[in-house]
Amino acid sequence: MAHDHAEHEQTPEQLQVQFEQLGLLESKFEDAEEQVIRKTEEIKAPVYKERTEFVKNIPHFWTLTFEQCPPEVENFIQPTDSEVFADCFETFEVSRFELDDPKGSPKSFSLKFGFAENEWFENKTLEKKFWYRHTQDWDGLVSEPVKINWKKGKDLTGGLTDAAVKLHKARTKVADRKKETALPEYKELAKKIETSADASVSFFGLFAFVSGYRWVSAEESEKAVQKDKEALAKIKAGKKVDEEEEEEDEDPQDYQETEVFPGGDEVATIIAEDMWPNALRYYKQTFEQDGEFDDEELSELEVDMDEDDESGEEVDIRALVGKGKKDKDEPPAKKQRKA
Amino acid sequence: MAHDHAEHEQTPEQLQVQFEQLGLLESKFEDAEEQVIRKTEEIKAPVYKERTEFVKNIPHFWTLTFEQCPPEVENFIQPTDSEVFADCFETFEVSRFELDDPKGSPKSFSLKFGFAENEWFENKTLEKKFWYRHTQDWDGLVSEPVKINWKKGKDLTGGLTDAAVKLHKARTKVADRKKETALPEYKELAKKIETSADASVSFFGLFAFVSGYRWVSAEESEKAVQKDKEALAKIKAGKKVDEEEEEEDEDPQDYQETEVFPGGDEVATIIAEDMWPNALRYYKQTFEQDGEFDDEELSELEVDMDEDDESGEEVDIRALVGKGKKDKDEPPAKKQRKA
Repeated sequence: MAHDHAEHEQTPEQLQVQFEQLGLLESKFEDAEEQVIRKTEEIKAPVYKERTEFVKNIPHFWTLTFEQCPPEVENFIQPTDSEVFADCFETFEVSRFELDDPKGSPKSFSLKFGFAENEWFENKTLEKKFWYRHTQDWDGLVSEPVKINWKKGKDLTGGLTDAAVKLHKARTKVADRKKETALPEYKELAKKIETSADASVSFFGLFAFVSGYRWVSAEESEKAVQKDKEALAKIKAGKKVDEEEEEEDEDPQDYQETEVFPGGDEVATIIAEDMWPNALRYYKQTFEQDGEFDDEELSELEVDMDEDDESGEEVDIRALVGKGKKDKDEPPAKKQRKA
Repeated sequence: MAHDHAEHEQTPEQLQVQFEQLGLLESKFEDAEEQVIRKTEEIKAPVYKERTEFVKNIPHFWTLTFEQCPPEVENFIQPTDSEVFADCFETFEVSRFELDDPKGSPKSFSLKFGFAENEWFENKTLEKKFWYRHTQDWDGLVSEPVKINWKKGKDLTGGLTDAAVKLHKARTKVADRKKETALPEYKELAKKIETSADASVSFFGLFAFVSGYRWVSAEESEKAVQKDKEALAKIKAGKKVDEEEEEEDEDPQDYQETEVFPGGDEVATIIAEDMWPNALRYYKQTFEQDGEFDDEELSELEVDMDEDDESGEEVDIRALVGKGKKDKDEPPAKKQRKA
């Protein structure tokens, strides 16, 4: 009754054809998704620009915004990281740097953090790029470790960012990625991560992130994309697609043993796709209580910042704005309703 | 060093002005967001249409897709609901029905479920509409309870959907919402919910959902939008905005005591914004193992469905596809990587 009987006629071969058609349709969805990202950036570019100008005049804007971040990001911000943010985090920008690159992807993005002079590192800017890349059996974001010039005795990652940068340099000189595991830099980083497994990694470990799977170069990705296109063209033309010779490519290595910041792609995605577009909302949460702004808090904040800067002590933003903090589980789109 | 001293000059009054400017900028972001939704629907309309045609030929497409849904939705699907889905859930559609309505919002959407004749209810279609509405201190999705014509002794919600429909009818006749709590229908539903608090509500309880806050009518919402617009116009013109006479409007009532399906707005949003656009991906997960399709499973599925339909027994899709199931925490965008 519930279903007609056409389904009973389907052989595994017919189902295989159906799955090929499904793959074709999926690729159309992907194209549409890329168009949507491009159009979204086009529509939002002027408001992002206006916001960047506006927040220049708001002290601690990005520090306060990051303090209100969703739990999936907040869990990765250690107390020392908050100290750094409160002291010297000044500018922040997300950009879709491959938007107009025919070989690139509109899903690629970068997070660019700007810092004032500080006691921890020399860099004024730390830019972390995430490239959306493909392999035959995986697609997702990969990244190159970013060198942080830590001041003496101030490395919040205990040498992990440096070791990741070293491995990456060595890795790109090895033609066959399966030989990467024999590199001394690979063993060194894997061991460093293993021995520090109990300690919470600093948020700055994100700059060492490589992949949720393994490093995928632009060349490998282009080849995989090309292969996909050829298979789709065959399906379109009604030709038979060769069954996966990829089996031989099976790689049992777990490259995650050298990943400094597991889940870094997801954290970065939440920052790019939620915090960046909704930054004003997150910032406002700092001052909201029962959905209203509180003049008293505004002046308290002003006084506290005054005192802090004059005494030369750290600005403890967390304590400063703590009382105005909202339940982190509350979606930012909604104001808190009255109790 | 970290911050210049300009911030020290800011008085609470200046900060208030800054917040007004921030509100203005936020409203521009909202406009951009609405444009993005409209453009997204425009870009995706052809692929959604093609998909609707395509999945007509795939038995159990929506049942299998909902079986692969993210945990935030799956937690609300009880074993009996799965039985219903496996037996008679046939078509599904999400639409942004206020996209071109100047008084409506592109954020409003409806979930339309199509069913074959079945033993539980008479309805062939159950359509749940969610309107994006505003009040002075809250904005979000509200909905009207949908009447489900349960067959005798088959009401999976134990009378909750009927009671919610009855309350809603009575509510719309009361001019002052604060008097709603005195209605016998209000008390009846509140009591019903209280006494059934220990049992898990059926997914069909979603059709009774009203709001994460309280019911907000189109008229109230329009007034609030109008008021916001006037305030923004004043800010733009550099005029002082009157300070909230809304305080008197404080309403201590917790209308959630008559909410049959708390969190229904969030569940519906995940269905509309994740499952609907990514349905092909979720469906494919049914058959994926280590990122590959498995011919054996495809033919097993076919055989099992055959047997089931012939014996007239329930189709236990969950058991049927269980072995091909992926880790629910894995984001759908990525294929599982090889172990």
